[in-house]
Amino acid sequence: MTEKKTNKLKILNDPIYGFITIPNALIYDLIEHPYFQRLRRVSQMGLSHLVYPGAHHTRFHHAIGCMHLMQKAVQILQFKGVEISEDEANAVYIAILLHDIGHGPFSHALEQSIVTGIHHEAISLKFMEALNVEFDGQLTLAIQIFKGNYHRKFLYQLIASQLDMDRLDYLKRDSFYTGVAEGNINSERLIVMLNVKDDKLVVEEKGIYSVEKFIVARRLMYWQVYLHKTGLVAEKLLVKVLKRAKELVSKGVKLPASKAFTYFLEHQINNDNFTFKTLKTFSRLDDYDVLSAIKEWIANEDMVLSKLCETLINRQLPKVIIQNTPFSELEINEVNNNVKEAFNLSTEELDYFVYYGEISNQAYDSTQNNIQILFKNGDIKDITAASDHLNIKALSKPVYKYYMCYPKK
Amino acid sequence: MTEKKTNKLKILNDPIYGFITIPNALIYDLIEHPYFQRLRRVSQMGLSHLVYPGAHHTRFHHAIGCMHLMQKAVQILQFKGVEISEDEANAVYIAILLHDIGHGPFSHALEQSIVTGIHHEAISLKFMEALNVEFDGQLTLAIQIFKGNYHRKFLYQLIASQLDMDRLDYLKRDSFYTGVAEGNINSERLIVMLNVKDDKLVVEEKGIYSVEKFIVARRLMYWQVYLHKTGLVAEKLLVKVLKRAKELVSKGVKLPASKAFTYFLEHQINNDNFTFKTLKTFSRLDDYDVLSAIKEWIANEDMVLSKLCETLINRQLPKVIIQNTPFSELEINEVNNNVKEAFNLSTEELDYFVYYGEISNQAYDSTQNNIQILFKNGDIKDITAASDHLNIKALSKPVYKYYMCYPKK
Amino acid sequence: MTEKKTNKLKILNDPIYGFITIPNALIYDLIEHPYFQRLRRVSQMGLSHLVYPGAHHTRFHHAIGCMHLMQKAVQILQFKGVEISEDEANAVYIAILLHDIGHGPFSHALEQSIVTGIHHEAISLKFMEALNVEFDGQLTLAIQIFKGNYHRKFLYQLIASQLDMDRLDYLKRDSFYTGVAEGNINSERLIVMLNVKDDKLVVEEKGIYSVEKFIVARRLMYWQVYLHKTGLVAEKLLVKVLKRAKELVSKGVKLPASKAFTYFLEHQINNDNFTFKTLKTFSRLDDYDVLSAIKEWIANEDMVLSKLCETLINRQLPKVIIQNTPFSELEINEVNNNVKEAFNLSTEELDYFVYYGEISNQAYDSTQNNIQILFKNGDIKDITAASDHLNIKALSKPVYKYYMCYPKK
Amino acid sequence: MTEKKTNKLKILNDPIYGFITIPNALIYDLIEHPYFQRLRRVSQMGLSHLVYPGAHHTRFHHAIGCMHLMQKAVQILQFKGVEISEDEANAVYIAILLHDIGHGPFSHALEQSIVTGIHHEAISLKFMEALNVEFDGQLTLAIQIFKGNYHRKFLYQLIASQLDMDRLDYLKRDSFYTGVAEGNINSERLIVMLNVKDDKLVVEEKGIYSVEKFIVARRLMYWQVYLHKTGLVAEKLLVKVLKRAKELVSKGVKLPASKAFTYFLEHQINNDNFTFKTLKTFSRLDDYDVLSAIKEWIANEDMVLSKLCETLINRQLPKVIIQNTPFSELEINEVNNNVKEAFNLSTEELDYFVYYGEISNQAYDSTQNNIQILFKNGDIKDITAASDHLNIKALSKPVYKYYMCYPKK
Repeated sequence: MTEKKTNKLKILNDPIYGFITIPNALIYDLIEHPYFQRLRRVSQMGLSHLVYPGAHHTRFHHAIGCMHLMQKAVQILQFKGVEISEDEANAVYIAILLHDIGHGPFSHALEQSIVTGIHHEAISLKFMEALNVEFDGQLTLAIQIFKGNYHRKFLYQLIASQLDMDRLDYLKRDSFYTGVAEGNINSERLIVMLNVKDDKLVVEEKGIYSVEKFIVARRLMYWQVYLHKTGLVAEKLLVKVLKRAKELVSKGVKLPASKAFTYFLEHQINNDNFTFKTLKTFSRLDDYDVLSAIKEWIANEDMVLSKLCETLINRQLPKVIIQNTPFSELEINEVNNNVKEAFNLSTEELDYFVYYGEISNQAYDSTQNNIQILFKNGDIKDITAASDHLNIKALSKPVYKYYMCYPKK
Repeated sequence: MTEKKTNKLKILNDPIYGFITIPNALIYDLIEHPYFQRLRRVSQMGLSHLVYPGAHHTRFHHAIGCMHLMQKAVQILQFKGVEISEDEANAVYIAILLHDIGHGPFSHALEQSIVTGIHHEAISLKFMEALNVEFDGQLTLAIQIFKGNYHRKFLYQLIASQLDMDRLDYLKRDSFYTGVAEGNINSERLIVMLNVKDDKLVVEEKGIYSVEKFIVARRLMYWQVYLHKTGLVAEKLLVKVLKRAKELVSKGVKLPASKAFTYFLEHQINNDNFTFKTLKTFSRLDDYDVLSAIKEWIANEDMVLSKLCETLINRQLPKVIIQNTPFSELEINEVNNNVKEAFNLSTEELDYFVYYGEISNQAYDSTQNNIQILFKNGDIKDITAASDHLNIKALSKPVYKYYMCYPKK
Repeated sequence: MTEKKTNKLKILNDPIYGFITIPNALIYDLIEHPYFQRLRRVSQMGLSHLVYPGAHHTRFHHAIGCMHLMQKAVQILQFKGVEISEDEANAVYIAILLHDIGHGPFSHALEQSIVTGIHHEAISLKFMEALNVEFDGQLTLAIQIFKGNYHRKFLYQLIASQLDMDRLDYLKRDSFYTGVAEGNINSERLIVMLNVKDDKLVVEEKGIYSVEKFIVARRLMYWQVYLHKTGLVAEKLLVKVLKRAKELVSKGVKLPASKAFTYFLEHQINNDNFTFKTLKTFSRLDDYDVLSAIKEWIANEDMVLSKLCETLINRQLPKVIIQNTPFSELEINEVNNNVKEAFNLSTEELDYFVYYGEISNQAYDSTQNNIQILFKNGDIKDITAASDHLNIKALSKPVYKYYMCYPKK
Repeated sequence: MTEKKTNKLKILNDPIYGFITIPNALIYDLIEHPYFQRLRRVSQMGLSHLVYPGAHHTRFHHAIGCMHLMQKAVQILQFKGVEISEDEANAVYIAILLHDIGHGPFSHALEQSIVTGIHHEAISLKFMEALNVEFDGQLTLAIQIFKGNYHRKFLYQLIASQLDMDRLDYLKRDSFYTGVAEGNINSERLIVMLNVKDDKLVVEEKGIYSVEKFIVARRLMYWQVYLHKTGLVAEKLLVKVLKRAKELVSKGVKLPASKAFTYFLEHQINNDNFTFKTLKTFSRLDDYDVLSAIKEWIANEDMVLSKLCETLINRQLPKVIIQNTPFSELEINEVNNNVKEAFNLSTEELDYFVYYGEISNQAYDSTQNNIQILFKNGDIKDITAASDHLNIKALSKPVYKYYMCYPKK
């Protein structure tokens, strides 16, 4: 209680929730740490702002928002009689605050380009462990919950499940900043519907329609925003830029880039060689390193690199086609040949200009960390079974689409 | 009309206005031009996101928003019987779209650091003239209006006056993204109240209270946001970084920076030597050049530069005091001496760590491009005279405050 | 155009859309007509305010809102190249403005109690025809479209189909006033997606997810709002009050009531005997006649009427159970016997205190006035076929539930 | 705590605040009481819906909203270390919930017509005392606070001062429902700025601009909404209807009206003869009694009453002029003579058709229950002194305007 008197008890403005409270001094100090401050320079939605000009929000803001929703969830559950100790509450606040701290530049877009074979969650864990040392073990319970090792499962489910605070924030936030108002979900109401039964997170019966609407909104956001064809092609282009840069570097070409970025261009970092020193270097890497380098590379003498970079910076993006069936070998060959000839490319270069693949989305997955409905009589059922309407079942089937990108004439 | 069939007639999502329409192909092409695309990488509010984490919106988005409001204003005025030709309409759309294209990195924050003695409006004009060449004279009328040379004054006033589309957008937008909901102005209603009398822009009588509320909201935004002490100190710090970097460069020190940024570090650019080649270089310069350089400079061996950069990047900002009266020489000397001793600084270095000055705001200025109220009987009065309440008069007095910044212990 | 100079060109404030414009003098005069002004005293959602205290909006406001959306739709379609003449535009504005003018007190709640065997649409048509006489035939085209007799079907579909302006307004409006934010639909975006092909209304391909979300929101509104059990029981109670009152009146009992209301209590009005005189009387009848009479009837000596009225006015509503399967005869008998005994009722009286029935909702009906999707290649498919996801198909199955109401102890 | 398990712990939907919680069973029971349920049938803004069609919200909803804000205020103050016992909290919830329960039909519009010389606050107190008997003294502390007799003044100030929860709700709510978005105040932020010093309510220094904006918004709402000329004339007309009806009744004319309404038409009720029996009758009186009677009176043979009623119901309102200076005797005489002649009225009748008077508004009154600012150094100043800008001082001067109403030709 005396803690509240300190300077570290802050109320922040948030465009979405109005006010966000920093609940205690430890969390204040974590937010102030340079590791966390770095997230101010990592955009939440990669290059989506090329489609939705408002989408410049950051991982920093998202993390703070998640922590806010977690406070709401803890309050509601306590109000309903679920016992959550102060230590447990604090631990879930920390865990959700730091769950994305391992994201690299442009978030998901470069997740497998900067490093390979190691997911951002694993890097987040490395950061948490490093911070736990600095903060004398005060993150131990948070780490335990984050790893899914704590016996009260619902605390983990608040952090990582199909109705976790992460999703409740990012869908709302991304909808808000893109202006795709239809993706807006009612996070507050969904949280009001939460409860805990046998230490598992459940949604009360009357929340069925809200959950359904949440799943539909999520699907809408995937197809209209996250997998929007312009955003998709920009992201693929970015990956190609990185690939070309690494290739040139591996051949001994010297590319202008920041020290931290150069380190990752020169080394293939994966789970095995990701040391504490790597973590320190990673903690200095953000969108600014990558984008400022790409701007410089426009002047590079390698035509492929130069062209890719210019295309990206000036938003003269390749053409992209998306369809419901895979492209045939015939179609691919035809495009390849046309492009090769038109732009006078070698076969090896072609790969940087024509690319294709599969995208998919599963609006709801009933097989893992699914959404459980609690009925008034005490029964619990998966949402797909709980709804006597078939559509949620329908939504749990993955949908595949196929894209092909190639230069405009 | 056939134009509408082209691919260039687009509807964009905007978090604030819902949908923004690109009215014709010429404007579409201007938006696509790399000069304009650069604005995607120039933040609207400099470093304000260090206080308000949502404030990452860009000059690009603001410019598009202004163009949207201008379309609304033209519609309303035409609806009220004001004749505006298609060419005039198109010209004001272009003029407002490009009015800020001359902003450099971090907008106002570095306005007198990157270049000196030349305001962003003058650089905007240079961009417009360069674009007018590329677009075969299609911007001529827009330039004429922008320069205030067109005989129908209200078209200029829609672009540059105390109730112009620029202000109507930026106040609303900045309020929205910072989450300072009280700064929110009702742009739509203010536009509905506009009219034209003798080719001058006026507000209809019933809009008096709305104008008053607009002025109060503007003042609130200044003191709570634009001149917020944390944002202020971050901005001053950024200026100090630039100053130190230029100083070092002038002494022959080689600092890592992009080519474009290096050019401006090495040359003192002002109105006289700002050539077309300068413009080309300027057009490649944005927030990313500056921030990525600052990140590299943390490792610089110059203690002053290194310290300033680290302080900025990790948001370990100096302490700042704001008060209503100037600091006395005595107070300043005391702080100077304390800091000098505590951090072991030379007199010359001290200037980078202790700084003070004056800030001021005038919520409304009745002496230039003032707001005119049209009464039902045809009379026109300045808003300060139109209101029989004294408070707008009160608001037109400039207010001064004084700040001092110095390192935390 | 001169018309715009008149006093009848108005801009109204609307909490939902900001501003609503009255497009011309004829529509202004229709709105001012006492027939239309009556709608100010007819609540849009019957007794739903007993559940959602904000839901006091009126048919008047809804009708104005529909007219606003219709203006948007006409603008968008014209923007896309669909030719709509000024007469046609005006006719659809009138038709949508008046489409609900035939609603009696409490809208749907008493639709088959005040009169029988005649729907509100039929009474709307009678009003339109009466107004057409008063307005010298200026409503002829509107009536033709309203009746579905005009050759350009899309104009009718804008008024009456599964994506008409009526639905786009009432779902949004009811969601807004109830505060059930999840029912909020993005009317503006849905309208932006509309187009016309072969004189039929279609939705462009990219609008598939928006349509799906609209259907899900509509279903949510049905189960959480329109068929909310408390609102349901209040509505059924209201019907019982009317029934009892009519029964007493038929036996010669004199009940206090307004002249207009007395007329409908004393006469069984149906399609055959609904004369122009009936219309005049109907045009004086609204929520105030009914509710003020019910308040007086609390003091009536007929125990059944008195009790029902008191229960309704003081919101001491019966208990209601809703379940997925019909109630068995056994269950019904048991409740009947318990209530009969507990309250000492005759068999005939029992019917006023225990009642049960079926409610159903079909979120989407592909068999009539369905939603057609226009693909880029020109193909048109029903939304259920257009979506490769099964859930819309699932949503087009009607769902049935069963309720039983009986007095609380 | 066990209380929370009961059925009486409810969460309501509110369009403005999202969710409103009923904090305990006693408050639930007060809300369910017929005295309080009556407020569902008393409109908050009288006849303002004739200008702003959305403004149909009720005293019931406002009272619930006030209670919600009071809960927020108590939480914030407790968070800042102000001790408020559970009994005190509960008492302020009750006091604010019931502060308006004494409002009669159409709220302020008929405040001095139904009864005379007794304000709604006094009737509210009578209701509270009656309820206190029914609820075995559980309202005693609430009544003490409401009467200003409790030693901790800030609790009273939360209920009745220039920054009380009443104003924070009604300004926000009325702005919301009228759609006059500029009147919207940021109740949440204002509450966040509250504190208590020496048992008095204060606003923290950084809230100065917010308070200023609140005062400006309040003034805007007065002139644009509460004193809007159309609403004003409708209200004056309503008063005239009542006056004529009472006059006729006093002459022995029998007018159709509900029993409760008849009682108040037949008796001059004031503070002295307002008995418990009067209270019971008053508790059955609401908008529906008055409006349904007025509708019947259209058919009355008294031309004056009939005409006034018809004018009101069909919204064919008199012409109204508002100006900054009083009307001269000459002007008044001219209008009187014209109307008298044109409508063939007696001098006595004239008074029902031509009326004039003064309206005034004082945006802020520094002389009673003023707004105190708490500075960081502990000083407290009135807001007019705290602001170094003169405009709040300007706003504390009352403004007068003058109206005259007469029939349209």
